[in-house]
Amino acid sequence: MNGAQALVRTLVDAGVTTCFSNPGTSEMHFVAALDTVAEMRAVLGLFEGVATGAADGYARMTGRPAATLLHLGPGLGNGMANLHNARRAKTPLVNIVGDHATYHVQYDAQLQSDIETMARNVSRWVRTSRSTGDLPTDATEAVVAALGPPGQVATLILPADVAWTDGAQPAPPLPRQAPAVPVDAVETAAKVLRNGGRTAILLGGSATRDEPLRAAARIAAATGARLLAETFPARLSRGAGVPAVERVVYLGEIAAAQLAELEHVVLVDAKAPVSFFGYPDKPSYLLPPGCEVHQLAGPADDAPAALAALVEALDAGGVEAPVQPAARPQRPTGALTAEAVCKAVGALLPEGAIVSDEANTSGLHLAASTAGAPAHDLLCLTGGAIGQGLPVAVGAAVACPDRPVVALEADGSALYTIQSLWTMAREGLDVTVVIFNNRAYSILRMELDRVGADAAGPKAKAQLDLSGPDIDFVAVARGLGVPAERASSAEEFTTMLERAIAEPGPHLIEAVVPSVL
Amino acid sequence: MNGAQALVRTLVDAGVTTCFSNPGTSEMHFVAALDTVAEMRAVLGLFEGVATGAADGYARMTGRPAATLLHLGPGLGNGMANLHNARRAKTPLVNIVGDHATYHVQYDAQLQSDIETMARNVSRWVRTSRSTGDLPTDATEAVVAALGPPGQVATLILPADVAWTDGAQPAPPLPRQAPAVPVDAVETAAKVLRNGGRTAILLGGSATRDEPLRAAARIAAATGARLLAETFPARLSRGAGVPAVERVVYLGEIAAAQLAELEHVVLVDAKAPVSFFGYPDKPSYLLPPGCEVHQLAGPADDAPAALAALVEALDAGGVEAPVQPAARPQRPTGALTAEAVCKAVGALLPEGAIVSDEANTSGLHLAASTAGAPAHDLLCLTGGAIGQGLPVAVGAAVACPDRPVVALEADGSALYTIQSLWTMAREGLDVTVVIFNNRAYSILRMELDRVGADAAGPKAKAQLDLSGPDIDFVAVARGLGVPAERASSAEEFTTMLERAIAEPGPHLIEAVVPSVL
Repeated sequence: MNGAQALVRTLVDAGVTTCFSNPGTSEMHFVAALDTVAEMRAVLGLFEGVATGAADGYARMTGRPAATLLHLGPGLGNGMANLHNARRAKTPLVNIVGDHATYHVQYDAQLQSDIETMARNVSRWVRTSRSTGDLPTDATEAVVAALGPPGQVATLILPADVAWTDGAQPAPPLPRQAPAVPVDAVETAAKVLRNGGRTAILLGGSATRDEPLRAAARIAAATGARLLAETFPARLSRGAGVPAVERVVYLGEIAAAQLAELEHVVLVDAKAPVSFFGYPDKPSYLLPPGCEVHQLAGPADDAPAALAALVEALDAGGVEAPVQPAARPQRPTGALTAEAVCKAVGALLPEGAIVSDEANTSGLHLAASTAGAPAHDLLCLTGGAIGQGLPVAVGAAVACPDRPVVALEADGSALYTIQSLWTMAREGLDVTVVIFNNRAYSILRMELDRVGADAAGPKAKAQLDLSGPDIDFVAVARGLGVPAERASSAEEFTTMLERAIAEPGPHLIEAVVPSVL
Repeated sequence: MNGAQALVRTLVDAGVTTCFSNPGTSEMHFVAALDTVAEMRAVLGLFEGVATGAADGYARMTGRPAATLLHLGPGLGNGMANLHNARRAKTPLVNIVGDHATYHVQYDAQLQSDIETMARNVSRWVRTSRSTGDLPTDATEAVVAALGPPGQVATLILPADVAWTDGAQPAPPLPRQAPAVPVDAVETAAKVLRNGGRTAILLGGSATRDEPLRAAARIAAATGARLLAETFPARLSRGAGVPAVERVVYLGEIAAAQLAELEHVVLVDAKAPVSFFGYPDKPSYLLPPGCEVHQLAGPADDAPAALAALVEALDAGGVEAPVQPAARPQRPTGALTAEAVCKAVGALLPEGAIVSDEANTSGLHLAASTAGAPAHDLLCLTGGAIGQGLPVAVGAAVACPDRPVVALEADGSALYTIQSLWTMAREGLDVTVVIFNNRAYSILRMELDRVGADAAGPKAKAQLDLSGPDIDFVAVARGLGVPAERASSAEEFTTMLERAIAEPGPHLIEAVVPSVL
C-alpha cells in the first residue's frame, strides 16, 4: 500500500475515524485512500475554517481527535482562526496539511510557502513526514501528541510523494500518555479550602464537564467556596439537575468587581482571569491585589481525578451539592428582541442538546434563559476568533448524531464561515441555526467606547455597520441548501424554533433584532 | 494627536489612501482616526480574505499600495491566502495587523498569538511598532518596503496602546527606492537574441503591462524570438491593438511540450517555468535539458526600462510589432456551456475592462474568446490560493471606478471569499460577476487522475463533488445584496451579461454548465 493508504489505516486504528477536509491537488492520494479504509468518514467543507472548526467541535464532544485535511500553506492559513480557537480549547486535533512533493520544493512553485512556521502558531507538535516508511509512525505520534495531556493541535505535514510512494505498512497505535494526579496540590488546595477565607474554585478546560463539575460543586458546598468557571469554557455541562456555576464575565471591569472580594482562588485547569483586551485605564489582571492563587490541576494534570481526590481529602463525598432546578421561561410574546430569542431557546431547548454559542452581545440573556432548561452542553468561543460557532456545530453534530445541536450565531460572526451551512445540508446534520441579525458589529460599538476612542464619526461608525445592504440570511442559507425562514415576532420565532427542533436535519431561523447595547 | 491619527495621516501623505478593513477591538483607535483624515477611504469586508485580496487588486491597478486593517493573529490567518497571492504577484501592500496593548501581551489573553512569525510567511518586511513616537516613521518605512522593488507585502503590527497614546506627529514620506536598470544584462540579452537560436522572451511581473509588452513584442519581431508570458500574470495587457503573448500553459506536461524546442530563454521579471505541483513521472522543471536561461531583469530591476534599453541595443525602435486584430466571437446560441459563456464574454467585453479570472477549468476557452476583444487588463490567480478572484475584483473596482470589472469565477473558488459580494453591493462597485457553476471541484477530478491516484472510489469522488445540495448562487448573491439571475441558455446568458455590463453597480449571473473536462 502507499503512504496515504497506510496513513488512513493508521489513523483509524488509533481512533481517528473522521476527517474534516478541504483538499487540493497535493492531497489527492489521501483522498483516493479514503475508499480503502471503510471506517474513515470524510466530511467536506467548502472553506478550511469549516474543517478546522468542525474538528474542534467533534473532539470537544467525543474526546477523540478528528483529522483535518488542508491544502498547503494557504489552506492552513484559511484554517488558522479556528485552529487558534482549538488551541485555546485544548482540543485534541490531528491537523494534516498536504505539501508539495519533497523534490518539488526547490522550485519554489506558486503554492510553495513555509507551512511549518505558520503551524507553530497553533501547534507545539509540528512534523513534516520525510519518508513513506516513517509516515505511519509519524501519524501515531501525532495522535498521541494531539491527545496530550493537554490536548493540542498536532500538525502533520504530508508531502505528496511521501503519500504516493508504495511500500508502507500501517503502524499500531501508541499508548496514550496518562495525565498526572497532582497529589501535593490536592493537599494544598484542601488546606486553603478548609481555612474559611473568601475562596473561589475556578474551573476551566476539562473541569467544566458533568462529573468534575459535580465534584467541584460538592467541594464548594462543603467549604463555602464560590464555584466559578472561565468566561468561555470549551464545553460546559449545565441545565436542570446540574450544579450551577458562575462564569467570569467578559467585560474586564465588571469581572474585576465580580472577583473583588476574593482572598484565594483555586485553579482547576484554568488560568487566573485576565481581560480579553488591554484598555486605557482598565486592569488587565482581574484578581484583586493580594488574592492568592493556588493551582489544583494544570492543563497536563488529570483535573477530574484531582477534584475527586479533593472531595476525599475534604471528606465531602456525602455532601449534597445544590443543582439547578428545572425551570423554563414562558414562551415569549410581542416584539422580536434578542432577549425574546434567548427566552424562546430556554423555553424549547430539548434534553441533551448541544448549544454552540457565538451569539456575542445578542446572547446577553442566554445564560439566564437556559439555566433551568434540560441538561445540555454549551460550547463557547474559546479563543475569541469569531467564525467558530457554525463549524463547531457541524463537528458536534457529526460527533453526536443522536443529540440535537442548536447554534446561536451573531450575524457578523456567522459570515466568516457561512459555508458551514452547506456541510450541514450535505451531511443532513440535525442543527438548528439561529441568526441574531442586529445588522452591526455590535460588540465593536461597545468596544469603540470602551477603548476611549472618542472621536468616532461617520466613517468609524460605518466600519461597525452591517446594514446597507442588509444581509438576508434566509436567502444565503437557502442558497447553501439549508431550509430557512425569518421571524417577525417573538411568537413567530418560537413557533419556527419549535418546528426546526422537531424536524431532523438543518434549519436556519433569522431573527432581525435590535442591538442589546 | 494619538498614534492612530498620526499613522493614518502619514499613510495618506505617503500615497496610501485606501484601507481594506475588517477590524476588531484592538483596532478601534485606527477606526476612530478615519474621521480625522478625510483623504483616507476605508472599505469594510466581512472576512479578512476579502480585505487582503482587495488590497492586492487595488495595487495591481494603481501601482500604489493600499493598507489592510486586520484583527490580531486570527485576522491575519484569515487574510493569509490572499496575502500569499499578493506576495506571488509582487504587489505592494501595507498589511496592518492590530495587536494587544504591549503591556497586555504578558497575560496571554485568549486572542494572543505569534503574529510576527505568521506574517513572515508572506512578508520579508515585518515590524511591530514599539512606541507611539516611532509609529509614523515605521509606517513610512512600511510603505517604502511595500513599494520595493520588488513590490511586497510589508506587515506593520500595531499594538493597541501604541495606537491610542497621545503625542504623535505624522512623518513625511520617504523617497521610493528606484529599481535598477541592469545594463550588463541588456548587453547579454541582446547578444543572445542576435544569435538566431530558438529563443523565447518570458515576461512576468511588471513586464506584462502595456508599454513593456509592446517593447518586448518589438524585440520579438526584430529577432524572431517567441514572446511568452508566465502562466498567471498579475496583470496582463491584452486585446485588440495590443501585442499578443503566448502564456505558458498550466499543465506541466503540456507546458514542457510547448517549451521543448527552446535553446534560450530570456527572463524578464519572471522565473524559469516550473510545474505547479510535482507529479509521479512528470517533470517539475519545464525547460528542456540544455536550454540556457538568461535574466534580463529580476524582480528588483526596472523591467520596463530594461526592455526599452534592449529595444535600443537591438536597434528595434522602428520595428512594427504585430498586434492582435480586433475580432469578437459571435454571440453564442444553444445550450449553455463554459465555452458559450467564454464566447459571450468575448462578444461583449467592453473597452477598458478589467477581467479578474478565476474561472479555472471552465475558463479553458477564455483566452481565445477574448483575444480580439477591446483592450483590457487581465488579473490572474498568481499564487494558486483560490478565493482570489472576487476580492481582487473588489479592489480593482475601487481603484478604477470608471472602468468596468468582470469577475469570472469558478463555483468552488468563489465560495472561499463569497463575502466579497457584500462589499461590492455596499460600495456600489461596477462589477459583473459570472459564476461558472459546474458543481464540482472540476480541476481536482483531473488532478486525481494526473497524480496517478487510481483507486478513486465513491468516497474520493464525493470529496470533489459540489452537488447534493446544489449551490444556488443567485440566492446567495441576493442574500448578500447583489442583484443576480441564472441563465438557462447561451442566448439568455448573453442577454443577461449585456444588461449587467450596461447597468452600473454589481450584478451576478450564474451559469450552470457542464464540466469541460
